[in-house]
Amino acid sequence: MINSVFLTDLYQLTMMAGYFQNKMDEIATFEVFTRKYPPNRCYFIAAGLEQILDYVQNIKFTDDEIEYLRKNKIFSHIKDDFFEYLKNFKFTGDIWAMPEGTVFFPNEPVIRVTAPIIQAQLLETYILSVFNFQSMIATKASIVTYEAQDRKVIEFGSRRAHGPEAAALAGRAAYIGGCIGTSNAYAGYKFGIPAYGTIAHSWVLAFDKERESFEKYFQAFPESTILLVDTYDTVEGVKKAVKISPKIRGVRLDSGDLYELSVESRKILDDAGLKDAIIIASGDLDEYKVKKLIDKDAPIDVFGVGTTLATSSDAPFFNGIYKLVEIEKDNKLIQKAKFSENKATYPGKKLVWRFLDENNKLINDIVADIEEDYSDNATQLLVHTVKDGKQLTPNPSMTKIQEYCLSNLTQLDKKSLGVNCNPVTKVEISQKLKDKFNQVLKEHQSE
Amino acid sequence: MINSVFLTDLYQLTMMAGYFQNKMDEIATFEVFTRKYPPNRCYFIAAGLEQILDYVQNIKFTDDEIEYLRKNKIFSHIKDDFFEYLKNFKFTGDIWAMPEGTVFFPNEPVIRVTAPIIQAQLLETYILSVFNFQSMIATKASIVTYEAQDRKVIEFGSRRAHGPEAAALAGRAAYIGGCIGTSNAYAGYKFGIPAYGTIAHSWVLAFDKERESFEKYFQAFPESTILLVDTYDTVEGVKKAVKISPKIRGVRLDSGDLYELSVESRKILDDAGLKDAIIIASGDLDEYKVKKLIDKDAPIDVFGVGTTLATSSDAPFFNGIYKLVEIEKDNKLIQKAKFSENKATYPGKKLVWRFLDENNKLINDIVADIEEDYSDNATQLLVHTVKDGKQLTPNPSMTKIQEYCLSNLTQLDKKSLGVNCNPVTKVEISQKLKDKFNQVLKEHQSE
Repeated sequence: MINSVFLTDLYQLTMMAGYFQNKMDEIATFEVFTRKYPPNRCYFIAAGLEQILDYVQNIKFTDDEIEYLRKNKIFSHIKDDFFEYLKNFKFTGDIWAMPEGTVFFPNEPVIRVTAPIIQAQLLETYILSVFNFQSMIATKASIVTYEAQDRKVIEFGSRRAHGPEAAALAGRAAYIGGCIGTSNAYAGYKFGIPAYGTIAHSWVLAFDKERESFEKYFQAFPESTILLVDTYDTVEGVKKAVKISPKIRGVRLDSGDLYELSVESRKILDDAGLKDAIIIASGDLDEYKVKKLIDKDAPIDVFGVGTTLATSSDAPFFNGIYKLVEIEKDNKLIQKAKFSENKATYPGKKLVWRFLDENNKLINDIVADIEEDYSDNATQLLVHTVKDGKQLTPNPSMTKIQEYCLSNLTQLDKKSLGVNCNPVTKVEISQKLKDKFNQVLKEHQSE
Repeated sequence: MINSVFLTDLYQLTMMAGYFQNKMDEIATFEVFTRKYPPNRCYFIAAGLEQILDYVQNIKFTDDEIEYLRKNKIFSHIKDDFFEYLKNFKFTGDIWAMPEGTVFFPNEPVIRVTAPIIQAQLLETYILSVFNFQSMIATKASIVTYEAQDRKVIEFGSRRAHGPEAAALAGRAAYIGGCIGTSNAYAGYKFGIPAYGTIAHSWVLAFDKERESFEKYFQAFPESTILLVDTYDTVEGVKKAVKISPKIRGVRLDSGDLYELSVESRKILDDAGLKDAIIIASGDLDEYKVKKLIDKDAPIDVFGVGTTLATSSDAPFFNGIYKLVEIEKDNKLIQKAKFSENKATYPGKKLVWRFLDENNKLINDIVADIEEDYSDNATQLLVHTVKDGKQLTPNPSMTKIQEYCLSNLTQLDKKSLGVNCNPVTKVEISQKLKDKFNQVLKEHQSE
């Protein structure tokens, strides 16, 4: 990850200067949530918290960055003490968040930041750019892996992701959502998730004969050889592959009619006694194509899903927002809300309570005021993660995050899952929260 | 930018080990190109070369990265000398590339890498992830700015971009494609492009009264105050804004009917004598909405375009590919081609020649074999950029890149520009290249 406090919108920095110049030391609370579903989505998976915590705890304005601001003509009337202040800037606030892998829904606060307003303001852009992206990819991955049923899915999209960092984060998020791993080396190295890789067409083309390219690869990687068989002719490729060694791990089909070719390839492998050799299929796959192949019971063991997964191409952005909900000034709490018809924001700090039935299926969620308590019948989803700027518990392992995510997904009604889903999960706003909203609205109207 | 050689697919590293173990020291040539247009695109703009050159010249395997590979069970049969080799790995090859800002078309090589195959192979994923993303965004930005005509466009999409790095690179690429700047602070700081920023709704909400929030902001930023006026009621907001000072720079409308509100706002500003105050409009804009506003001559001076621009949401991936076209072995050139019907790859090193008429309008391009010369009537677009691993000329400034891009765009037929475009530009494959392709095909078939 790039490490710069400047990975934010410039207006966060101008507002910081404005708050500082006006000596505003209010404690502000912002909440991250989204208002509605994008197309083809019926739930979301929270992802990206680890990177957010890393950023928050390592914020530092370098001398060069401060100098850049000082010389920027927008800041020409900002007094020196602001730039001095930045030199020792630290985040000293609190963060509550749903753990990574949590399933959540529109209107539910997923992350809550409470800090002096000058600090809380700064975090908006970084939090959203990391959280929106990874949550979007984790959610997409869960749809693809759901449709793949008992077959496995590997994220393959680095070359079409939105830059090298997005490629690595896509691998991470896809793992959370249910993929067994990624093709991305950095994601494997940095996040400790399984990274997979064998050969590309260029390897095969680098040799005079396809067969020679297979032999040479097997000599170098005798225990993990998956041969890419479609450079010239897939069926001929599989026939050559089985002659290399009974110990090859499998073949990869990357073009053509994947159903027909997988059936034919399976037969060639089986006839040659390579019952354990697997078939990986890739090439412009998405959840719909995976579903079709599964519906026909194509003998494919692993799907490599690239572009559509790493860019969430059918819904390529996620509208998580970061909204001011409360300000504490002179020990008094002032509730903040927005009243626009389609853009209402409920005031104050909230909690999210999840009600499960005896079969561990989700009945409904309640978004409630922080003072409410439903702990007799429900689980509360937001966890106190950062206190006074310090992280309270270590990050869970990626394996744990994935397990937690998969256990969350089993709580959902089947109608919510996979392609052509229906968003059937009910999210209620508690009566107390509605009353509070109306109270704030009344006060605003009487002004 | 993150700086790690591991920002690549793991299979590039396994193939490297395979090439090394097999003592393959062939010189390979790979070319980057795309086969067809995504929806709503009729040309592309090359972007991202600066980051690629930075990566290529600073490749270094750290001890930790080498250790990661050594312990990875895929590499368990790879001998020690490979890991030793990685310690001093350097890119020593050549790169030819279209300068950033060049307009290009399907089937045209945009970047050509010639190097020992073990080096050239490694670069694929990084080159593609940077080039595909930035070219996609620069192209999108050129469509938005074309529709904005004489009005200006600022890229506003950091919070929905695919992670913090994508946010910064989107700002950079959008500038190349014609935006006057970005909201992203890192892009401003790192790439030296204009970064813009004033206030968000949270600033307004942080005060008891909207008017107070305006006053306080103006006190801190008396020369660059653009007031966000839609937190409560846009028209009332503008009325308050004009009372703050005749010196405010303008107002920003962020919701509602932007045409109606801009007309009304302009009148309020003018009536108050603020003829020079500008109107910025933002809020879920894209090139179609911008066009509609321009068609009605809405008095909007600057458009802030966010999500749709920073994610290229109508065409959220760009299929640039990196294909092996030639191998030099024992001083003999071996041509590499692919013959699949829709996925043909022409063999050998190529050049791209652009023919302009006397009015500087593009007649057509010819993709030619490297031996061909059309310099009497055409300009050749690929520039020798890296020789023996060293960059030949410094990176142009961002201003120069943008100027070059805009001058390229003026060469295009109007039908190619803006929304509802037609891809009218002709790209011919030279006869010599076709003959070469058929020759390679014949040799392949006779094998």
